[in-house]
Amino acid sequence: MLELLNRIRVVLVEPTHPGNIGAVARSMKTMGLSRLVMVKPKKFPHCEATKRAAGAESVLNSAVLVDDVPEALADCTLVFGTSVRDREVSWPTFDPRISANNMLGHLSVELSTESKPEVAILFGRESSGLTNQEMDLCHSQIRIPANDEYSSLNLASAVQIISYELRMGALAKQAGSDVSSQQAERPIELRQQLATKKQQQGHLDHLHKVLDRLEFFKKKPPELLMRKLTRLYNKTDLTIEDIQILRGILSAVDDQIQN
Amino acid sequence: MLELLNRIRVVLVEPTHPGNIGAVARSMKTMGLSRLVMVKPKKFPHCEATKRAAGAESVLNSAVLVDDVPEALADCTLVFGTSVRDREVSWPTFDPRISANNMLGHLSVELSTESKPEVAILFGRESSGLTNQEMDLCHSQIRIPANDEYSSLNLASAVQIISYELRMGALAKQAGSDVSSQQAERPIELRQQLATKKQQQGHLDHLHKVLDRLEFFKKKPPELLMRKLTRLYNKTDLTIEDIQILRGILSAVDDQIQN
Repeated sequence: MLELLNRIRVVLVEPTHPGNIGAVARSMKTMGLSRLVMVKPKKFPHCEATKRAAGAESVLNSAVLVDDVPEALADCTLVFGTSVRDREVSWPTFDPRISANNMLGHLSVELSTESKPEVAILFGRESSGLTNQEMDLCHSQIRIPANDEYSSLNLASAVQIISYELRMGALAKQAGSDVSSQQAERPIELRQQLATKKQQQGHLDHLHKVLDRLEFFKKKPPELLMRKLTRLYNKTDLTIEDIQILRGILSAVDDQIQN
Repeated sequence: MLELLNRIRVVLVEPTHPGNIGAVARSMKTMGLSRLVMVKPKKFPHCEATKRAAGAESVLNSAVLVDDVPEALADCTLVFGTSVRDREVSWPTFDPRISANNMLGHLSVELSTESKPEVAILFGRESSGLTNQEMDLCHSQIRIPANDEYSSLNLASAVQIISYELRMGALAKQAGSDVSSQQAERPIELRQQLATKKQQQGHLDHLHKVLDRLEFFKKKPPELLMRKLTRLYNKTDLTIEDIQILRGILSAVDDQIQN
């Protein structure tokens, strides 16, 4: 089951300190994770990253650099964002252990098609974490249960804890033990092909357009409503067929408005 | 139960890099641990330690310096040594989760005497770990289940993982569950009011009516599509607010058709 870890990518959003990037690579590799994606790192490659990687340079060498978060997530079927704070619009929030089991359950599903599920874990900037807009791209939030009086986890420490839980979960699965009841019974629809993040976003953009034409937003700004709708869609494991049905309905509405 | 963490000390044996000492202090404090003991640190106090502590200086300021390991452990009732490697003479060895539960169980026992149980966790040198002689002072060994091909955990990362397991264990105890964190942290979403089955059905009936008016079903019988839509809605934990938003959209479509 350890091979499931190969389909989990760690995504760092605009990391500032090259030392942290190296420490993240080391944290990942000690737990058997290897795929690092970075959105606009401030300094990379950098000698400080290589130094702190301390033998985990393979992770740095194969790191993928992208320009924005959607690009980092394009072919992912499940996305988690990490946080230590509460947010106004709440996402489904789980601790690292439950999150790890959810990810492994998702990755274990045998698909009949050629594509395999892919999971991403988003880590925010050292100073300010993830924006709400970035969290909108996530299905769920991982909250590390830190000390209320001092929750300032180092980036590599956060990666270390979550990577550790992933390894513990994969080892338990491998040992044939029942990791959690959550993945013991997975709904049937997961055996169907799940929609990628890009397909989901395509549908949401379509919905936004139609709502606009319906003058649904009126004088109110659309942002809050679209965020709530995004969250509603994110908490559902949408399959490609689901998206096709929903887009069919939108097109029918669209035609009607034009007539 | 979080107060049990105050009777657990982290003992660093001859740490070489002051940066690691600071990072250890930070790892500990994020998880609510506060007691740091050091056996002959090479450089301490040191600006690099203070810098990497990043706000966890209280742990550094109250750190206790001693000359040898026995002195660090003198009043302890239970001692764990950490390792990532197998040893010739094997000690009872547990993973971090089981070790954390063992420690918390030990600390929970009310003693009839005035003294309370005290626990120590020994961490070895960055380069060479603990000697066998030092391990002889330990009741058990904690082995972090690292990647066989690359098990080089940073000192602060090892402290982070074990401190995290101690906090998870203490939180679970606090929540009255000794099994796992599942009950300790309910997803936030479930704290919002979920829609009743009746409210969901009301929405689906509304959707059916609108689709009919859009001539969406055309010549095909609506049953199959409505079953698929019902399944899609069922797999989402719809809240009352979700239903309100979806019905609002349907009403807007409805109005548009009438016009």
